[in-house]
Amino acid sequence: MMTMPLPLTLPTIVPTADHALSAALSAAIDNKTKPPGSLGVLEVLAAQIGLIQGTIRPQLSAPEILIFAGDHGVVAEQISLFPQSVTWQMVHNFLQQGAAINVFAKQNQCALKVIDAGVNHDFGVLPGLVDRKVGFGTANFARQPAMSVEQCRQALAHGIAAAAQVKGNVIGFGEMGIGNTTAAAALMHKMTGATVADCVGAGTGLGAAGVAHKRQVIEAAVQRHAANADADADTPLEVLRTFGGFEIAMMTGAMLQAAAMRKVLLIDGFIVSSALLIAARLQPAILDYCVFSHCSNEQGHRRLLSEFGARPLLQLDLRLGEGTGAALALPLLHAAVNFLREMATFDGAGVSGKSGAADDTAA
Amino acid sequence: MMTMPLPLTLPTIVPTADHALSAALSAAIDNKTKPPGSLGVLEVLAAQIGLIQGTIRPQLSAPEILIFAGDHGVVAEQISLFPQSVTWQMVHNFLQQGAAINVFAKQNQCALKVIDAGVNHDFGVLPGLVDRKVGFGTANFARQPAMSVEQCRQALAHGIAAAAQVKGNVIGFGEMGIGNTTAAAALMHKMTGATVADCVGAGTGLGAAGVAHKRQVIEAAVQRHAANADADADTPLEVLRTFGGFEIAMMTGAMLQAAAMRKVLLIDGFIVSSALLIAARLQPAILDYCVFSHCSNEQGHRRLLSEFGARPLLQLDLRLGEGTGAALALPLLHAAVNFLREMATFDGAGVSGKSGAADDTAA
Repeated sequence: MMTMPLPLTLPTIVPTADHALSAALSAAIDNKTKPPGSLGVLEVLAAQIGLIQGTIRPQLSAPEILIFAGDHGVVAEQISLFPQSVTWQMVHNFLQQGAAINVFAKQNQCALKVIDAGVNHDFGVLPGLVDRKVGFGTANFARQPAMSVEQCRQALAHGIAAAAQVKGNVIGFGEMGIGNTTAAAALMHKMTGATVADCVGAGTGLGAAGVAHKRQVIEAAVQRHAANADADADTPLEVLRTFGGFEIAMMTGAMLQAAAMRKVLLIDGFIVSSALLIAARLQPAILDYCVFSHCSNEQGHRRLLSEFGARPLLQLDLRLGEGTGAALALPLLHAAVNFLREMATFDGAGVSGKSGAADDTAA
Repeated sequence: MMTMPLPLTLPTIVPTADHALSAALSAAIDNKTKPPGSLGVLEVLAAQIGLIQGTIRPQLSAPEILIFAGDHGVVAEQISLFPQSVTWQMVHNFLQQGAAINVFAKQNQCALKVIDAGVNHDFGVLPGLVDRKVGFGTANFARQPAMSVEQCRQALAHGIAAAAQVKGNVIGFGEMGIGNTTAAAALMHKMTGATVADCVGAGTGLGAAGVAHKRQVIEAAVQRHAANADADADTPLEVLRTFGGFEIAMMTGAMLQAAAMRKVLLIDGFIVSSALLIAARLQPAILDYCVFSHCSNEQGHRRLLSEFGARPLLQLDLRLGEGTGAALALPLLHAAVNFLREMATFDGAGVSGKSGAADDTAA
C-alpha cells in the first residue's frame, strides 16, 4: 500500500520564467565586449542564475556542498566491490579532510557539511558530523521495501530542514553510500521506464559479470515488489521508499526546499540525479534551479541527464560521487556571474561592434 | 623561395616518457582513497604533469597567461564581422581589466601579460603593454606572403624570449587579432591536408555566406602561393610565414621555449592550436607538455584536436579566444595536482580497499 500520508507539506517551487527579465539578461550579456554568444554555455548559465535570483546582476554567496551518507541493505546481494564499512570509514575521511571532495571544496572555497542520513555505524558524538540518522542502513530491497513509510518521511523532513538551514545561495549535493548506484539504477528504471540494463553501470568498478549480477538483482526485486503492488506502487514517493536510500530521500527533500528558497542547486552525479528524478516528478519546476555539474562515467547518468534535458558543464569521466563534480564545476558558476557583473560593455570600453563588413546571416 | 636561414636556434624539447616515474605516479594515484580510475581525466592529467615536472608530487607555481595580439592584412578581403580597429581597442580593454579574460584570470588567480606582437596601431608608451611589435599588421596573404622572412624570424625570437622570462611553471596561451581565424584555417589546411571547408568556421559570428567567402579567399590564396612555390613551400616555417600572423608565430616560438623549459603549456582555442600545429611539426615532443583546455565552437578546432590526439578538458562552446578557455580550465589543473598531493591513502585513512565481494573482471 502506498501509505505516505505525509505529515509534512512538501515545499512549493515557483518556475523561474520571466520574459522581461530574460530579455534584460540577454541584452546585458550581448552588450559585453565579446562577439554575441562567444561565451557559449557560460552565457546560458549566467542567464539561468539571473532568473533564479531575479536580477541581471546575479551573485554567488557562500556556496556549500552537503554530503549525505547512508547505507543500503541491498549490499547483502553482493552488488559492490567494496565492503559496507567503507561508508563509515569515508565519513571519517571526510571529517579528517582526506577525501577528494575535501581537496576540491577547499581549493574552490566551498563549504562542506557531512550529514549522517543513515550509515550502518555508531559514530557516537563525532565533531563535524551532522546527525540525522534515520536508521542503521536501509532494508534489503531485494526482499522488502528499503524504508518504512515513517523512515522515508523522516528522511525527507530532515532533508528539508538541512536545506532550510543553509545561508548561502548555492547548494551542491553529494553523497556517500556503498551500494547506492544499485538503488539509483532501480529508481531510474522505475521512474523512466528505461530497461534495467540501461540503468546499471560499473559503480565503483565492477566488471561485466558484476554488472550483470547487479542487473539481475534489480530485475528480480522489481518483479517481487510488482507482485505485491497496489495502485500507489509507482508514485514517486512509493518508488523512493521501496528502492531508495536514506541519503537519496534526504537529498530529495533538501532539493525541494532549496529550490523553494530560490537557491541554485548544483547537481553532482548519478545518485544525486536519481534523487532529483524523484523531486522533479513531484515538482517539475525544480529543474529551473538545477545546474548539472558533470556527466559521469556511470552509464545510466548520461541517459538520466537527457531525461532532464540537461547539458552538463563537465565531462571528465568522473565516477566518484561525494559531490566531487559539483565542487569541480563551481568555478564555472563563478565565471558565469563574474563575466556578467565585471566585464566592460562595448560603449564603456570604446570597442567597436560588428561592422557589417561581412554577412551575418543565420549561422 | 624558402629563405629562413634562421639566425636563431630553436629550443630543443625532450620527451617526458619515463617508465619508472609513470609506474610510481600510477601507484600513487591508485593508493588514494577512491576507487581506481574514478577521477577520470584528472588522473590522466595528474600523471602528465608529474611526468613534465619529473616528480610524483607535482605542483603548479605562478601560472601565467600570455596574450599575443596582432593584426592581419587579410582583413582587406572582408573576412571578419568586426573592423580591424577592434584589435587595438581590445588591447586597451585588456589593460583596463574589462575583457572576459581579465575576469576569468583574476577569478582563478592567474597572472596575465599582454604582448603587442604586431597590432596595426601606435600605442605610444602604454603601461602594462609588452612591446614586441614586429610590424603594423601582416601583409594580405591573399596577395603576398603575410610576413617577410625577417619578420617571421623576429616573431619567433620574441616568442622564445617572452617564454624564457616567465617565472612560473604553467604558461597559458591566448591571442587577439581580428582576422586570425582565417590565418589559422589556412595554416591548418596547409599542414594537415584537411579541405579548406573543414578548416574554416564562423569566427566572430559569420553566417553561411560569410563562411563561404572566407573559404574562397583562402582557397584562392593557397592556389596563388602554390603557383609561386619552390621546394620549401610546404615546410612548417614557410607555411607560417606565408599564411600566419605575428601573434601566431610569436606563440609558436614561445611554445617551443616553454616546452624546452619543461613548463606546462595550457592551450586555448583554434588560433592557439594553429600555432601549436607549426611547433609540433617542428618538434613533436612538444605535445607531451600540452594540456588542451577546451574544444571551441570554431569548427576546425575539433578536427585539429584530433590531429593532436588531444582530449580537451572543457567543452563549453566558447569561441572568444583571448586565452579564456585556458583561464577557465586552470582550476582543473590545480585539482589534478591537489588530489595527488593532498588526498589521504587507503592505509593512512583506515579505509578498506576492494573486498572482492563481487567480481572485478575487465570492465
